[in-house]
Amino acid sequence: MQINLLLFDDFETLDAFGPVEVLGRAEGYTVRHYSEKGGVVYSSQGVPVVTEPFEHADLSGILLLPGGMGTRNLVKEQAFLDMLKRAAEQALYVLTVCTGSALLAATGLLDGKRATSNKRSFEWVRGTGAAVLWQPSARWVVDGKYYTSSGVSAGTDMAFGFFAERFGDAEARALAHRLEYIWHDDKDSDPFAVTI
Amino acid sequence: MQINLLLFDDFETLDAFGPVEVLGRAEGYTVRHYSEKGGVVYSSQGVPVVTEPFEHADLSGILLLPGGMGTRNLVKEQAFLDMLKRAAEQALYVLTVCTGSALLAATGLLDGKRATSNKRSFEWVRGTGAAVLWQPSARWVVDGKYYTSSGVSAGTDMAFGFFAERFGDAEARALAHRLEYIWHDDKDSDPFAVTI
Repeated sequence: MQINLLLFDDFETLDAFGPVEVLGRAEGYTVRHYSEKGGVVYSSQGVPVVTEPFEHADLSGILLLPGGMGTRNLVKEQAFLDMLKRAAEQALYVLTVCTGSALLAATGLLDGKRATSNKRSFEWVRGTGAAVLWQPSARWVVDGKYYTSSGVSAGTDMAFGFFAERFGDAEARALAHRLEYIWHDDKDSDPFAVTI
Repeated sequence: MQINLLLFDDFETLDAFGPVEVLGRAEGYTVRHYSEKGGVVYSSQGVPVVTEPFEHADLSGILLLPGGMGTRNLVKEQAFLDMLKRAAEQALYVLTVCTGSALLAATGLLDGKRATSNKRSFEWVRGTGAAVLWQPSARWVVDGKYYTSSGVSAGTDMAFGFFAERFGDAEARALAHRLEYIWHDDKDSDPFAVTI
């Protein structure tokens, strides 16, 4: 199973690498690093990551999309959104973290579906997809093949949840133990919930 | 304040990028990515990171050292340990995550000091520094300028603790809220403790 991590400048570091830590440990899963044009992209915290051009990706696996300040410009770039839409349609599963769900919402693919995002940016995110059933209180949300998480560190909890569905709860807990990770395992319990 | 992240092949992804997420958000802090020789290094989960040669680093700031399977070979490489020892001596603070403390222990700089590490690898880690006061129950340990954390995700909790000491508890909690991070803030409470 290939995990296609789609990066862009000013992605949020932990949005990407929390889930990569978890899913990159899954038996038979391989993480590939992509950006629209390839080359080195920088996270908001300055991490320089080598990426391949997204057009080279085998899109049949899992698409993983972080959030971050870079989403604020990307949500207005139609070429990026068209590329993202094609990839998300072909993917077996799509996982977004934080404001990554704003990009997915802007493609229209979340219309009529339940989704969540960072609660600090919730008003902005809601504006990117008026027909999305935005959940103001959820650590993460699953609707069909679409997994969307709350802000930054919620992506790691979601990754464990995704792992548990594929490999079983006991395996997920064993992995959390190896990573000494205190898994917040209830997707419906959200300490950072907002009211809308 | 410069944070010198010293990477190597087969470092553990979250060991490095959990703390980078937190400290890279600190006002006036800049993360620089180094490895012994420079070039692209790969985490155990396959993240390709562009690094500068460590000899170019200004060593006066904070040294951040992850753990991971790569430490098993590095702990036997005297040239690496000599380089690490010089850097740690010059650093204002040294933060190690997981088995990163084994590398620091092998330099001798932790002799007589309190430190911790990953509890799954604790027996191996103890063997790298017989004179270190290894703590079998600690999320993270502070002894002077040396901060050592337990496994993988404990590094992120430690980074928040370090942040709180520099910028105040309220600022740390505000940052945790922005990252929707459920901070395990008691360094002495260790759900993964072992007995030795």
